[in-house]
Amino acid sequence: MAPLALHPDRALPAEPGVRAIARRLYAATAGLPLVCLHGHVDAAELAADVPFTDPAQLLVVPDHYVTRMLVSQGVRPDQLVAPGLDPREIWRLFCASWPLFRGTPSRYWLEHELVELFGIDERPGADNADRLYDRIAEVLARPEFRRLALLDRFGIEVLATTDPATCDLTAHEKLAAAGYRGRIIPTFRPDAVVYPDRPGWRADVDLLGRLAGVDVSNYHGYLDAVRRRRRAFADAGALATDHGHDTADTTPLPDDEAERIYAAGRTGSATPAQAQAFAAHLLFQMARMSCEDGLVLQLHPGVLRNHHDGIAAAYGPDRGFDIPVAAEFTRALRPLLQAFGHEPGFRMVLFTVDETVYARELAPLAGAYPSIRLGAPWWFLDSPDGMRRFREAATETAGFANTSGFVDDTRAFASIPARHDLARRIDAGYLARLVAEHRLGEDEAHETAIDLAYRLPKAAYQR
Amino acid sequence: MAPLALHPDRALPAEPGVRAIARRLYAATAGLPLVCLHGHVDAAELAADVPFTDPAQLLVVPDHYVTRMLVSQGVRPDQLVAPGLDPREIWRLFCASWPLFRGTPSRYWLEHELVELFGIDERPGADNADRLYDRIAEVLARPEFRRLALLDRFGIEVLATTDPATCDLTAHEKLAAAGYRGRIIPTFRPDAVVYPDRPGWRADVDLLGRLAGVDVSNYHGYLDAVRRRRRAFADAGALATDHGHDTADTTPLPDDEAERIYAAGRTGSATPAQAQAFAAHLLFQMARMSCEDGLVLQLHPGVLRNHHDGIAAAYGPDRGFDIPVAAEFTRALRPLLQAFGHEPGFRMVLFTVDETVYARELAPLAGAYPSIRLGAPWWFLDSPDGMRRFREAATETAGFANTSGFVDDTRAFASIPARHDLARRIDAGYLARLVAEHRLGEDEAHETAIDLAYRLPKAAYQR
Amino acid sequence: MAPLALHPDRALPAEPGVRAIARRLYAATAGLPLVCLHGHVDAAELAADVPFTDPAQLLVVPDHYVTRMLVSQGVRPDQLVAPGLDPREIWRLFCASWPLFRGTPSRYWLEHELVELFGIDERPGADNADRLYDRIAEVLARPEFRRLALLDRFGIEVLATTDPATCDLTAHEKLAAAGYRGRIIPTFRPDAVVYPDRPGWRADVDLLGRLAGVDVSNYHGYLDAVRRRRRAFADAGALATDHGHDTADTTPLPDDEAERIYAAGRTGSATPAQAQAFAAHLLFQMARMSCEDGLVLQLHPGVLRNHHDGIAAAYGPDRGFDIPVAAEFTRALRPLLQAFGHEPGFRMVLFTVDETVYARELAPLAGAYPSIRLGAPWWFLDSPDGMRRFREAATETAGFANTSGFVDDTRAFASIPARHDLARRIDAGYLARLVAEHRLGEDEAHETAIDLAYRLPKAAYQR
Repeated sequence: MAPLALHPDRALPAEPGVRAIARRLYAATAGLPLVCLHGHVDAAELAADVPFTDPAQLLVVPDHYVTRMLVSQGVRPDQLVAPGLDPREIWRLFCASWPLFRGTPSRYWLEHELVELFGIDERPGADNADRLYDRIAEVLARPEFRRLALLDRFGIEVLATTDPATCDLTAHEKLAAAGYRGRIIPTFRPDAVVYPDRPGWRADVDLLGRLAGVDVSNYHGYLDAVRRRRRAFADAGALATDHGHDTADTTPLPDDEAERIYAAGRTGSATPAQAQAFAAHLLFQMARMSCEDGLVLQLHPGVLRNHHDGIAAAYGPDRGFDIPVAAEFTRALRPLLQAFGHEPGFRMVLFTVDETVYARELAPLAGAYPSIRLGAPWWFLDSPDGMRRFREAATETAGFANTSGFVDDTRAFASIPARHDLARRIDAGYLARLVAEHRLGEDEAHETAIDLAYRLPKAAYQR
Repeated sequence: MAPLALHPDRALPAEPGVRAIARRLYAATAGLPLVCLHGHVDAAELAADVPFTDPAQLLVVPDHYVTRMLVSQGVRPDQLVAPGLDPREIWRLFCASWPLFRGTPSRYWLEHELVELFGIDERPGADNADRLYDRIAEVLARPEFRRLALLDRFGIEVLATTDPATCDLTAHEKLAAAGYRGRIIPTFRPDAVVYPDRPGWRADVDLLGRLAGVDVSNYHGYLDAVRRRRRAFADAGALATDHGHDTADTTPLPDDEAERIYAAGRTGSATPAQAQAFAAHLLFQMARMSCEDGLVLQLHPGVLRNHHDGIAAAYGPDRGFDIPVAAEFTRALRPLLQAFGHEPGFRMVLFTVDETVYARELAPLAGAYPSIRLGAPWWFLDSPDGMRRFREAATETAGFANTSGFVDDTRAFASIPARHDLARRIDAGYLARLVAEHRLGEDEAHETAIDLAYRLPKAAYQR
Repeated sequence: MAPLALHPDRALPAEPGVRAIARRLYAATAGLPLVCLHGHVDAAELAADVPFTDPAQLLVVPDHYVTRMLVSQGVRPDQLVAPGLDPREIWRLFCASWPLFRGTPSRYWLEHELVELFGIDERPGADNADRLYDRIAEVLARPEFRRLALLDRFGIEVLATTDPATCDLTAHEKLAAAGYRGRIIPTFRPDAVVYPDRPGWRADVDLLGRLAGVDVSNYHGYLDAVRRRRRAFADAGALATDHGHDTADTTPLPDDEAERIYAAGRTGSATPAQAQAFAAHLLFQMARMSCEDGLVLQLHPGVLRNHHDGIAAAYGPDRGFDIPVAAEFTRALRPLLQAFGHEPGFRMVLFTVDETVYARELAPLAGAYPSIRLGAPWWFLDSPDGMRRFREAATETAGFANTSGFVDDTRAFASIPARHDLARRIDAGYLARLVAEHRLGEDEAHETAIDLAYRLPKAAYQR
């Protein structure tokens, strides 16, 4: 088999002079703790701290970057993500498909995990799939490979989960009792109670009301319930809310119109247009609440979820069939920013999967409004060249201090160190180029590298 | 005169370490046969195999990349593309304008042709225009410079023409009889019978019906005629259809609405909005037919044709006044992909002249749906930096296997080898950077270079 | 303090081979005169030639690139741009914020000015703010630091100001009398009299009429007044008009509709939609007038001005809260280009802050229509990487000759040499890469570098 090893200079620029600088900058950040203030690791699994079951369940099935690539080349979803499958068979499919990942960040992360976590030294393939499976399964069974143990091994200083507004936070209570208070923290994600045309919206809203101890039969009770659940999350250590809206629209509605749409939602008669208007209105309200309770507002707009209904119906969401659309922030955020953009207590972190807005809209906004930070490259853009293009497009207008530093945003727990490591390498390479082009002193680049890897993510959220 | 020569390292990356790798990768593909499965070489001219008449008719007049540049700097179209002009005068204008092409792919292709085909060793200019003209004219008169002879000299394994749905395919019959069956093949291009508000639509539809032997007085007859002509093309060796739509919209219409618009088209009363809706509906129907007959659906949307009416009226289409507009694929393709995106027999190749969709829409779509391949950079983007940006934007999400490999898409027959050669150099350079950054093994890059140059175009079309 | 010095290779490519070529190309342009045919230096201040008052008023307060960055990190606008502030306090805030500018062009320009104009050799910071203030203030008091003296020191061959259509041109008369005729010239900027829903529009239109000696109570008088003021500007040496429209729309209106909207504007009842339609119509009319009087039409569309009303109300316009939006040119310019795009006497220079249109729309348009030149990267894009991306996106379709060469477009007088110098370095780097990749001869690159720095800006405007 072809050997597998991690080159110490991987993802650093090829030009020897720039690489030499990049090596020095990377060395200053490689050992820093990981600040993970937005992600999708499951809180209940952390609290239960059960072992990972097998290689396929760890590295393939829950990773939509991986399953989508296999599906795109003809593997059927029912061979990968259906219940009752033999994990070894899934793993064999994955190993045989290894060449598909050439040039992708998945390949980069997976290599890092295979080598660093499991001591694998050969490239996956059809021939060695079973051997690799056995090797990884053996490691997974060890006690030091439980999630909470990995937290220390990975050097994770703080880890935020993302939790629905209707989460009762018992997993976080349990983690707090086990000594993780302030280290594993929740994030308030209200999407399920925001779009009143969503199937299940009313049930979720009712649950929200019960958890908050508030009558949600009317709009004002609903707003009150949202406010109280935000407080409960904040009391459990949350630093932020997260909003996965279709667009960045923040136009507020007149109170009576909001009430009318809310009422329509409760009778199941809200139209899609009403639902969109209500969601925009809610985003405006969330900013107002952020000014009150200090939670940082994270906005992740612009993804058309479940592009293929059949995949969603058969296998559920997050199966790789979420596709970006063009984004617009300048006009969409204006109502919110007119109202709260200069509030000293308000902080908003903006993410996008449409990189055309980096230079055109997001950097100009983040380079003007004190409340805005520009989030790290998200999802499809969280990749070597994607991160490089982000710095090239955003820095000249927004500088570094108006960006959030690295945010891993992953549900693949074992990939967290690989993702932070890659981001540190790419930022080192970008900064090294500025130094080599005499646009920045190496002392300044050194300080900035540490800002991007460690200080800025903390400053963006832990204010 | 300044000397003209082709440097062996041209279009490879400048950094010596990366260049050394790129040289090795390029060497593995430089001699591979050319797979030309989409282009605009004229079938009748191939079948007749008449000699090229003169340098201006070969290299200037039919090449809208060239004429548009001259016009943009003040040469009048009636000096270039009007009937009855002295080809030597056209050639002189072209040579005197040589500096205009600095930094353009036309310059790159033309240099390749001048040196490789005609043995020219001096840069074109006002002073040597006549000498070059005579030299080229002398070569063009040789029998080995006929089109079919060049097919061998160029190493073209297979060449697809693009032919209107109303083409009777006699040229291809003649070519088949001459031994080119399966080597020179047609492509079914129905645009002229798709937009029912186009002048001449009814005449073209009637011709389609006659060729198909079907009554096209109603919509169902029309659909049947389309289906039969597709079969006739497939029987003549066609592997694909091609669709130059204004947008990528694929929303199907209810049957009765399609019938109504068809009927309106026949009486000349279809509105532009109806015509757009009908075209979108037809694209959906074409996908359905592709599932049946196996023809690959190529989509080339997003160009506003004949931006200047006066140029079109005086000199016809394809004169350089086609200008791109912003493209949208995520929502536009959703109806088609919901219906056929997972059909095992369906294949669609997507092209764009709006590169903002590479990372945002096309790579996410191609990296999920098994039916999609992402076509090569098209038209204005078929250029050294354009091709490099394509790989950088698309690979991290779609990988390599979800791209089509190189597609030359040219009407300039003599430029075909230059275009393939340039693409192979750019891909070698991109892959070399991945190797130099330790993101890919050189053995993998070697295999991938051959995929992109040869295996993937065959796999995309010849399934 | 950390030392401050300008490296001779700054902003040149890092790779040694490419840098060596770039050095030679840059050397050929470094000493060329500055052609400044679009900018915002104040004509009255030039005519009065009063000394600059203090470092804060020279380098901080009027520079929205600088103040916006400070505000984005929590400095309150009333600490920076309110009347009556102590300039030394402003300067201290600025120096303490120096690290914010890392990676931005402001940092690059400011370094150039601090070193070259004021002989500063230490990085600004909280500790040395007062020392730097005193040093700069001492220099500013010298007679050789008056604006007109700097004109010679900077090597400015010609400088265009931008002046409202209602400007009486007395400053330019005074400058002409002082020997600057043809060297300091006005530019006709009619924006204030174009949007009939703008507060103050009627007063400005009335003033326009008085200056033109024309009755503007009706639309035809208004058009006549515009035409006469254009002539007055041309007589005072103007070469161009400038238009800061919301969009690039150029759809003409029927005469009676234009009259109706004009009348509505005069009674204060024009709707926003009418105002947009009128502005588009006016752009069409301006092109017609350009054909008559030869003034070059500069278009700067796509910025949402005064994104935050509160900032605008408290501190006025141009405070850093102008945010770009997505631009569209292909359809928007079509009416104008159908009518005037091939007129021999017509010239239009197009600017954008949405770089997605470079390759998609602007280069294809500029590479076809003889009337179009593609302007230099504007505003947020006038930066090292922004300028590099512009050349990479535009050149392959438009070539070099269809671009305007460098346009500094600044209101920061002292930054003019820095901006031209940076552009010359970036263009040298881009051309050097083409040479190193054997896509261009070094002799050609040498000639092109001089074109971009000097010949093309003159050719674009001084026809």
